[in-house]
Amino acid sequence: MDFDGFFKAELDAVREEGRYRVFTEIERHRGRFPHATRYVGDETSAVTVWCSNDYLGMGQHPVVIEAMHRVLDECGAGAGGTRNISGTNHHHVLLEAELADLHNKEAALLFTSGYVSNWAGLGTLAAKIPGCVVFSDALNHASMIEGIRHSRAPYKVWAHNDPADLDRLLSEFGPEVPKLVAFESVYSMDGDIAPIAEILDVCEKHGAMSYIDEVHAVGLYGARGGGVAEREGLMDRITVIEGTLGKAFGVMGGYIAASADLVDFVRTFASGFIFSTALPPAVAAGACASIAHLKASSRERELQQDRVATVRRKLDMLGIPHLPNPSHIIPVMVGDAKKAKMISDWLMDNHGIYVQPINYPTVPRGTERLRITPSPVHTDGDINRLIDALSDIWSQCELARGSIAA
Amino acid sequence: MDFDGFFKAELDAVREEGRYRVFTEIERHRGRFPHATRYVGDETSAVTVWCSNDYLGMGQHPVVIEAMHRVLDECGAGAGGTRNISGTNHHHVLLEAELADLHNKEAALLFTSGYVSNWAGLGTLAAKIPGCVVFSDALNHASMIEGIRHSRAPYKVWAHNDPADLDRLLSEFGPEVPKLVAFESVYSMDGDIAPIAEILDVCEKHGAMSYIDEVHAVGLYGARGGGVAEREGLMDRITVIEGTLGKAFGVMGGYIAASADLVDFVRTFASGFIFSTALPPAVAAGACASIAHLKASSRERELQQDRVATVRRKLDMLGIPHLPNPSHIIPVMVGDAKKAKMISDWLMDNHGIYVQPINYPTVPRGTERLRITPSPVHTDGDINRLIDALSDIWSQCELARGSIAA
Ligand SMILES: Cc1ncc(COP(=O)(O)O)c(C=O)c1O
Ligand SMILES: Cc1ncc(COP(=O)(O)O)c(C=O)c1O
Repeated sequence: MDFDGFFKAELDAVREEGRYRVFTEIERHRGRFPHATRYVGDETSAVTVWCSNDYLGMGQHPVVIEAMHRVLDECGAGAGGTRNISGTNHHHVLLEAELADLHNKEAALLFTSGYVSNWAGLGTLAAKIPGCVVFSDALNHASMIEGIRHSRAPYKVWAHNDPADLDRLLSEFGPEVPKLVAFESVYSMDGDIAPIAEILDVCEKHGAMSYIDEVHAVGLYGARGGGVAEREGLMDRITVIEGTLGKAFGVMGGYIAASADLVDFVRTFASGFIFSTALPPAVAAGACASIAHLKASSRERELQQDRVATVRRKLDMLGIPHLPNPSHIIPVMVGDAKKAKMISDWLMDNHGIYVQPINYPTVPRGTERLRITPSPVHTDGDINRLIDALSDIWSQCELARGSIAA
Repeated sequence: MDFDGFFKAELDAVREEGRYRVFTEIERHRGRFPHATRYVGDETSAVTVWCSNDYLGMGQHPVVIEAMHRVLDECGAGAGGTRNISGTNHHHVLLEAELADLHNKEAALLFTSGYVSNWAGLGTLAAKIPGCVVFSDALNHASMIEGIRHSRAPYKVWAHNDPADLDRLLSEFGPEVPKLVAFESVYSMDGDIAPIAEILDVCEKHGAMSYIDEVHAVGLYGARGGGVAEREGLMDRITVIEGTLGKAFGVMGGYIAASADLVDFVRTFASGFIFSTALPPAVAAGACASIAHLKASSRERELQQDRVATVRRKLDMLGIPHLPNPSHIIPVMVGDAKKAKMISDWLMDNHGIYVQPINYPTVPRGTERLRITPSPVHTDGDINRLIDALSDIWSQCELARGSIAA
């Protein structure tokens, strides 16, 4: 077989659809977020980033940077091993304690990423609990879907954010069948939020374990940044809370928080946890400092909410269509892959504004969008420049205006 | 179902077998490797680490530490996004170019870990090439096995390091069947090295793609640290070279290096690559500095070989049985899970020597061992203390002496 010929043909098909990804190469500047330098080969230009998931700008916060410098000097660059073979550093243990405390759980377990925590966490539970059936929200993230697929456990997909449908599906199985319900709090592409209390009612009715991905919520919601479940006083009703250290906390890594026995079980049986070099101690220390800071400070969350509200209000004044939702994510809807890319390119080339177009398979075809994530580091000036540019391109291209019903 | 009761019972079974893992918590001290502080709750003690996979001590090398400090200050803590959504930093691009050059390939692709690079790299190729059959060495690492399983592609397991068996299995499939052969260069638990040239002969005879995991070889073998395939002049005959940035390079991350089309294909279709926050720019910069240093300097490799030879010679003088192999890994064979743990505990408690016992499922039952990894940072004094302690416990416990036939 001509392998490279096959790869080329497959890539050509993706190009045809207008969804071939060219990564935008940037260099963010600590202390000057959201400002960055864009690279195209050797050419550079100044850009303002409007699509980062460093939602609160914690990636440049002095407490985070200082902790990382300090532990880099104290402990060196890498962990030097898997968790079991010389790779458990004191800073991993401190971070796991901080995470357990954040979610008011007995224990927490650190993974190299949020992706791996979902894949390995869900995958291990579903595979190792005999007869387990998984119930997965229709819009769950790829990392959860792959974990469920990997487990080979039977699974049912329930209608997005629909506790009644979940109830219906759970009712198909007797009380003797172990059940695992997986869902997210904030869905990152639409920015909608799950009816967590209702979902938990249904889980409890059926004796099902609940597994929530709070990747786009930890640090951002709740008095201490524990996520939507903290805000709604629901953390102790949830079996497993999963999160990332790479978005609002600004660093890298993933975790689950749960009962001591569940965590010990995953620690013992998850291949993706045990057979991989541990996070660098400095990364763990940076994340730990970020969590501790956001437990005590709500200023970043408040500022972010203010920036989000401002952008929304200005988009509304211009009639630029965006999905209404109760979160910090502003999806400006375009509905066509090539058009979304064209607008994004135009914003970049003419205004140095970087908003990545989001295409299939990240979102369904026909719902292509620009996903805007205002943060405390965006000034009024930044916002005005964004809004003026969007208004300009909306007029030039005669794009539809108007509001989107909730 | 009583989930926590189930977890507890499963963990008790593991305890019964003597293979329940208690992680040793340490803090390595930059500038003083292999010396570290051990934590047991609040109590600390001094230990010498003899089981790190920071094989060359690059995790404390000034060029690595300096690069990480600098980029931390320049770019901040995290990447702030997935590679496609604002997370491609200039330092990722520089690192991918450095990796492609290291292996003399057209392109390279960075993952968050070596585990993810195997799982996603192999998994994507096997799943997306229609009709692909995978041929996997019997002792392949968990990350490769999970990638192959995840792909759902049919697979055959060939006898470890046995090109004739591989040839036999490949012959069962016609030339029209796309074939992917996966193996390692240095096997980390026995320290044996694959007959790469013979395996490639067989692959070429059958028109199969070859995929090699050089995780325990990159940085360590070859004039520029490109791995065993570089040393043997075979890199350009291999389709995909996979490696880690977390062992000899001393930091964290994983990668594949291959043709531009293959890399672009995996970049486009691998869920585990695209749907996960990118490595922190400082981590990428640290790894890049480490690779560049080890391309130009063989001093670390030579010193390591010398330390390995010294430990082997002294073990032989005492008749302490270790697997003979042509690599830098010294497996001291014990053959019993509880005994291996007992020896390890005794070394730690009486001599502050840390060698992790290796048990099932990392190695087959009955082949439990202590896995010793001498490195340039171990002095003659460190070696003598290790050897004296081993001699002592071997006498006390009347453990078998003698050599192991190759
Ligand atoms: C809902 C959700 N879960 C998990 C992840 C993976 O987390 P990480 O980026 O830490 O791998 C992401 C995105 O990256 C996500 O959007
Ligand atoms: C052979 C082999 N491949 C891959 C990996 C995974 O690499 P990483 O530690 O970077 O996840 C390991 C060990 O961790 C390994 O031993």
